[in-house]
Amino acid sequence: MNEHQKFGKVIFPAEPWQVTENRFMTNEYKLNETIFSLGNGYLGIRGGFEEGFSGSQMNGTYINGFYEEYPFDYPDFIFANPINDQFMVNVADTKVILIEIDGEPFSMTSGLIEAYSRTLNMQTGCMERSIRWKTSKRKTVNLLFQRLVSFLNPHLYVIRCSLTLLQDADLKLYSGVFAGETILADQDNTLFSREKLNLRMQINHISASNQSIEVQQKCKISGLAVACAIEHVIEGLPNNPETIVSKDTAGLSWKTNVKAEQQIVLTKYIAYTTSRDMSEDSIQAFSNQIAESAAKTGWQSLFSSQSDYLGRYWQSADVEIEGDDALQQGVRFNTFHLLQSVGRDGKTNIAAKGLTGEGYSGHTFWDSEGFAVPFFLYHSPEIAKSLLEYRYFTLDGARNRARQMSHTGGALYPWRTINGDECSSYYPAGTAQYHINADIAMAIRKYYFATNDKTFISEMGAEILFETARIWTQIGWFAPSKGGKYSIPCVTGPDEYTVLVDNNAYTNYMAREHLNFAIDIWHMLENEFPNIIKGLQTSINICTDEINHWKKIADNMFLPFEPNLGIIPQDDGFLAKPDWPFAKTTKEEYPLQMHHHMLNIYRHRVCKQADTVLVEFVLSDQFTPEQKKRDFDFYEPITVHDSSLSACIYSIMANEVGYPEKAYEYFIQTARLDLDNCQENSELGIHMANMAGTWMCVVNGFAGLRTESGNLIFQPRLPEQWHGLKFKLNWQKCVLKIDISKRHTTYSLISGKSLKFKHFNQLISISNGESIVLA
Amino acid sequence: MNEHQKFGKVIFPAEPWQVTENRFMTNEYKLNETIFSLGNGYLGIRGGFEEGFSGSQMNGTYINGFYEEYPFDYPDFIFANPINDQFMVNVADTKVILIEIDGEPFSMTSGLIEAYSRTLNMQTGCMERSIRWKTSKRKTVNLLFQRLVSFLNPHLYVIRCSLTLLQDADLKLYSGVFAGETILADQDNTLFSREKLNLRMQINHISASNQSIEVQQKCKISGLAVACAIEHVIEGLPNNPETIVSKDTAGLSWKTNVKAEQQIVLTKYIAYTTSRDMSEDSIQAFSNQIAESAAKTGWQSLFSSQSDYLGRYWQSADVEIEGDDALQQGVRFNTFHLLQSVGRDGKTNIAAKGLTGEGYSGHTFWDSEGFAVPFFLYHSPEIAKSLLEYRYFTLDGARNRARQMSHTGGALYPWRTINGDECSSYYPAGTAQYHINADIAMAIRKYYFATNDKTFISEMGAEILFETARIWTQIGWFAPSKGGKYSIPCVTGPDEYTVLVDNNAYTNYMAREHLNFAIDIWHMLENEFPNIIKGLQTSINICTDEINHWKKIADNMFLPFEPNLGIIPQDDGFLAKPDWPFAKTTKEEYPLQMHHHMLNIYRHRVCKQADTVLVEFVLSDQFTPEQKKRDFDFYEPITVHDSSLSACIYSIMANEVGYPEKAYEYFIQTARLDLDNCQENSELGIHMANMAGTWMCVVNGFAGLRTESGNLIFQPRLPEQWHGLKFKLNWQKCVLKIDISKRHTTYSLISGKSLKFKHFNQLISISNGESIVLA
Repeated sequence: MNEHQKFGKVIFPAEPWQVTENRFMTNEYKLNETIFSLGNGYLGIRGGFEEGFSGSQMNGTYINGFYEEYPFDYPDFIFANPINDQFMVNVADTKVILIEIDGEPFSMTSGLIEAYSRTLNMQTGCMERSIRWKTSKRKTVNLLFQRLVSFLNPHLYVIRCSLTLLQDADLKLYSGVFAGETILADQDNTLFSREKLNLRMQINHISASNQSIEVQQKCKISGLAVACAIEHVIEGLPNNPETIVSKDTAGLSWKTNVKAEQQIVLTKYIAYTTSRDMSEDSIQAFSNQIAESAAKTGWQSLFSSQSDYLGRYWQSADVEIEGDDALQQGVRFNTFHLLQSVGRDGKTNIAAKGLTGEGYSGHTFWDSEGFAVPFFLYHSPEIAKSLLEYRYFTLDGARNRARQMSHTGGALYPWRTINGDECSSYYPAGTAQYHINADIAMAIRKYYFATNDKTFISEMGAEILFETARIWTQIGWFAPSKGGKYSIPCVTGPDEYTVLVDNNAYTNYMAREHLNFAIDIWHMLENEFPNIIKGLQTSINICTDEINHWKKIADNMFLPFEPNLGIIPQDDGFLAKPDWPFAKTTKEEYPLQMHHHMLNIYRHRVCKQADTVLVEFVLSDQFTPEQKKRDFDFYEPITVHDSSLSACIYSIMANEVGYPEKAYEYFIQTARLDLDNCQENSELGIHMANMAGTWMCVVNGFAGLRTESGNLIFQPRLPEQWHGLKFKLNWQKCVLKIDISKRHTTYSLISGKSLKFKHFNQLISISNGESIVLA
Repeated sequence: MNEHQKFGKVIFPAEPWQVTENRFMTNEYKLNETIFSLGNGYLGIRGGFEEGFSGSQMNGTYINGFYEEYPFDYPDFIFANPINDQFMVNVADTKVILIEIDGEPFSMTSGLIEAYSRTLNMQTGCMERSIRWKTSKRKTVNLLFQRLVSFLNPHLYVIRCSLTLLQDADLKLYSGVFAGETILADQDNTLFSREKLNLRMQINHISASNQSIEVQQKCKISGLAVACAIEHVIEGLPNNPETIVSKDTAGLSWKTNVKAEQQIVLTKYIAYTTSRDMSEDSIQAFSNQIAESAAKTGWQSLFSSQSDYLGRYWQSADVEIEGDDALQQGVRFNTFHLLQSVGRDGKTNIAAKGLTGEGYSGHTFWDSEGFAVPFFLYHSPEIAKSLLEYRYFTLDGARNRARQMSHTGGALYPWRTINGDECSSYYPAGTAQYHINADIAMAIRKYYFATNDKTFISEMGAEILFETARIWTQIGWFAPSKGGKYSIPCVTGPDEYTVLVDNNAYTNYMAREHLNFAIDIWHMLENEFPNIIKGLQTSINICTDEINHWKKIADNMFLPFEPNLGIIPQDDGFLAKPDWPFAKTTKEEYPLQMHHHMLNIYRHRVCKQADTVLVEFVLSDQFTPEQKKRDFDFYEPITVHDSSLSACIYSIMANEVGYPEKAYEYFIQTARLDLDNCQENSELGIHMANMAGTWMCVVNGFAGLRTESGNLIFQPRLPEQWHGLKFKLNWQKCVLKIDISKRHTTYSLISGKSLKFKHFNQLISISNGESIVLA
């Protein structure tokens, strides 16, 4: 076990298809807002209570790609550092439901909770909270709150509150919207100025009628607008509510005397639409129409459509682990949250924390291409494609960024962004990570290999590849001191505990492959799509000379190697630094960057995350097994995994180099990182890349999948703790089922004509319907 | 000539002892506030007009070491980055004098200016402004404003306004104080948030009586308080003013009918005292007493004392250049401003912009030890000593900073500070410049060689040396990849266009010398002051083992050298970078950091300022002449002098390596940098280090002085444009006069018993009164 691995404490019982809180954990309220978040890639609702909560919380409702801007505060002028930050906005809170029994308001922290459970069901996509609550005057009520965010209609979410009193009582029921919250729900945030935390959206319209509520808000700086509609259906009571409207709230209030055992059910059909979807004039009417239509469809029908949708998702995406319910739960939880987080319209992406919290401000990073794309690609390739389309949608922003950075041509993708403009203010671990261009290129390559989708390449992929490739020619040179090899100074690799280095191995290898793949695509297009080449020659002024120059660079890329140790040094200066004083470092000093000045960290040989080891996974076929093992042995002891992108890579590579126990330990940490709150910050949102990494641990690690050569290769290594492992893989329109047991692996082609793949070194051909059992 | 040298346009006529503005330059108002600043090392008053001005300005009044604090705005959390910024505060403006003639207020931008001149006289230390002004109703008035800031009493400054009407007229004369200005006078500042720019001090007391005004202000965060007193003497009018007091102004107003040719003289005796000088209770009474006493002494007497003081200063500090009035003026202007800027109480220092403006927030940098100490040391050694005492005074702050940076022992001086706490927010060109510890050590060494002041070493110097030396043992290691040599990774050298590098040559050489000198001092103290050693053993827990460890490090310091080029590379990675694309860079792109992202700059071989070339000056005797020439030839073409600390060093080294023309061109730029506004930012304040560098250009450059070996060595090389060069040098209590002519150099010992020095390779002994003429 690596000294620095992080394990949390188990909070939830191990259940294969759900996550249950059986006892209300006041202190974990904020964490559980994350865990019980619902979303559909467009909308994200944290799991806070309808009636509110008085403790630490982040009561957020988010829309993918919907952001406010605010000028960064810099104490120093750095030319071309981004001027404005963007952050995902907490929009109107529509879940508000307040219940008073004999004048006593229901809350989880008053009266007596006689029974409680909250369940996230990953098969139905529904979150339920069931409570039996006794007032101080001994009236008892059974409450059931159900919530779903529709996967079928991205704008829609539904809340259903069922209520039965065990004694006659006066009931007051209020359902409404609160649009006066601050733009950032996390008031514990210490990174942002008070000024920024206290920002509110402008409310352009707010109203309530007999059963409907409307509210329109607008971001003051970005100018983006959102309209929300709520349609109420009440059962068990006459629908004669009082309407209450203030400047920032609107609601319906029912007051009545209720008989014992009388069931009352309130359902709220809620729709959000933004001016990113359509013209601002239309958003209210569109939301109203969706809410009304959903109310007509009704809860039961929406609930079963949601289950059906998820049934299909699990059909393709599920990974079955036999022999460990906790890990099975972790894998499914992560697989579920990824679906909840990912934008699927080609104009939105997947944030580092999904739509579950305000950590990293809702920004998209290289996590999308390095982790989310490889996750979705092999079971939901259309989602992987939409993530790549987002990069095409924001290509102009990347071109613009390149100009800001003094590059006369090409495109440089932002390190972190919502709308495509750079939002990283600390450039040494931001803009300096030029590898993002190659990460995007490699994701396109992976997608191309898996789908053979030449239409995407012609229409979008090639232009991204070429524009991003151009940057490599502008930040390096054929350095005499490197024997004339192409050398790239002053970049930051994936490891953020070493910055502004020369010849980062990851970057140089990835840049080489980026150039080589761009050249391959150029030639493919020349042969198969000459008109596309012609178009690009005009639109981006590219020509064969430039391609030849790329080849010269790729062929002469400087690739670091240290012959005495036999390892690939992370960068030119890495071996000249002393080891971090691990022996003197207490557990409380991690994560290091929260307890030591960056200079102290940068001065030492210590990795926040996989860097050289990562490139040996991503470009697996370019390194020998011996090289991988030597590098693993060298880097693993000095890697502290202060980034959640690290453990999964180490798990995969531990499998490859022959450390199955390490692989398993890293996997535990990965699979349950958010469920067990291993990084102690899941209250700020899930760790999206790690969740994707979980799936990769299984498929690339334990099943040993590699695709870098353009072919499917499996090297199954079932952990001895497991009885079996099953999953399906989508490859060039075929679906292959893989079933790994202790003794053998069974491959079945369940869709598609035929497929070739490798099982270890054995080349296998399989036809539709066929199952092949291999040792 | 280096492509990148910066020359301004000549604004002022070349006069050897003064600077004159003969025509009011509205557009240069802010620049001339700097040029005509007065100060005495405690108080600094920018040269704005008594009656005010409506255009762009920085109407500042400053007190050395008097600061407000304000939290830095950081968009990212960096552990141990300083929390609070400090900035020199614009205190109450006491120079206000308003004149109305027949109801028409005097201003330089209304009516008709018939005659105008403004003169800074460097022999009297007085600034005069003389105007003949005609009102729109054709009344003419002769006005003379005189201003001096006393070198004899740091708290005191005096303004005298003489006024004669050429026709009878109604006169209204107002004299007062305005204490409602913002803490920062420069409202054009774009680096600071509005919030910070709009800060005001609290006014604890403000009052006016028949002839006196009192005002007390207090900084809200730092808690520092200042009291100001003004005593008025009016001549030519009955002293029956109206007193006018508001919440932030207080003044006296005289209204009367004045006869033609009647002379009226108003003198304001102004005193400032702060709670850094004495208890807050006493500051008002102390200021009052100084103002009253000065009023009794009277203008004439103060004026002549000031002249006498300056006479003595010029006696020791003057550099006479025969053959170029413009350069003579530049040298004197710079020599004068240095005296005006430098704190002399051991508790204040000299800011990068002196007391003349808000550039760099009034912070002290390594400029103090690298430039100001070498300037003062050889003619005003007591001032050099007080600068070093300041470092002792702030040693606890440096210890504290070292702890923040995870150093378990020792002291790390702040990169920029007022009170001794680190105020650099951009650590790559801030805290990363660990060389500041060595710069301070080398200044102590220089001082010790020049004065042999073992008392200072025993009482303060040794403790500074030892505590700062300790840091070198904590940031390096005996690196196997450097053949076991002591290697220092991840620091920034003087050149701020290359940061976070390994084995910066300047730093490693300076660290070695720092350690060696600390060891020498240890042994000197062991022999001569065993009790001091005993005391240090207790107070800072130092012992012989630690000294031995220092010796091991010093003896094995890695000193970069590139055998193929025969040069000393600036750092381990410097030669692996491509040259900056100079040919493609337009003039408008300088300074580079204002037009290119730092990453783009750092990625290239381009120096903001002298770095390796600087260490070859500072540790002159450790490098061969051939080495120096090779390095000069290598670094000079890639140095852009975007720092004002660069040209002077290049002038000195150009002289040494045999480029007299380059030396002369760099000198022109140095000598007249502020007068000709070569860097186009002198409106924010003078460039203190460059001013000191001017003197160094002459003495270390043209006269070739070196003292690094502990001996005086001259290598005079008179520029062919000059007829002669004269200056005096204070060395170990002797005063040597050096008179260099075209043919020979005359050395005269005008104080002290006898002295040995070298003239080129010739060892010379000289006795009191003796003059030696050498070819």
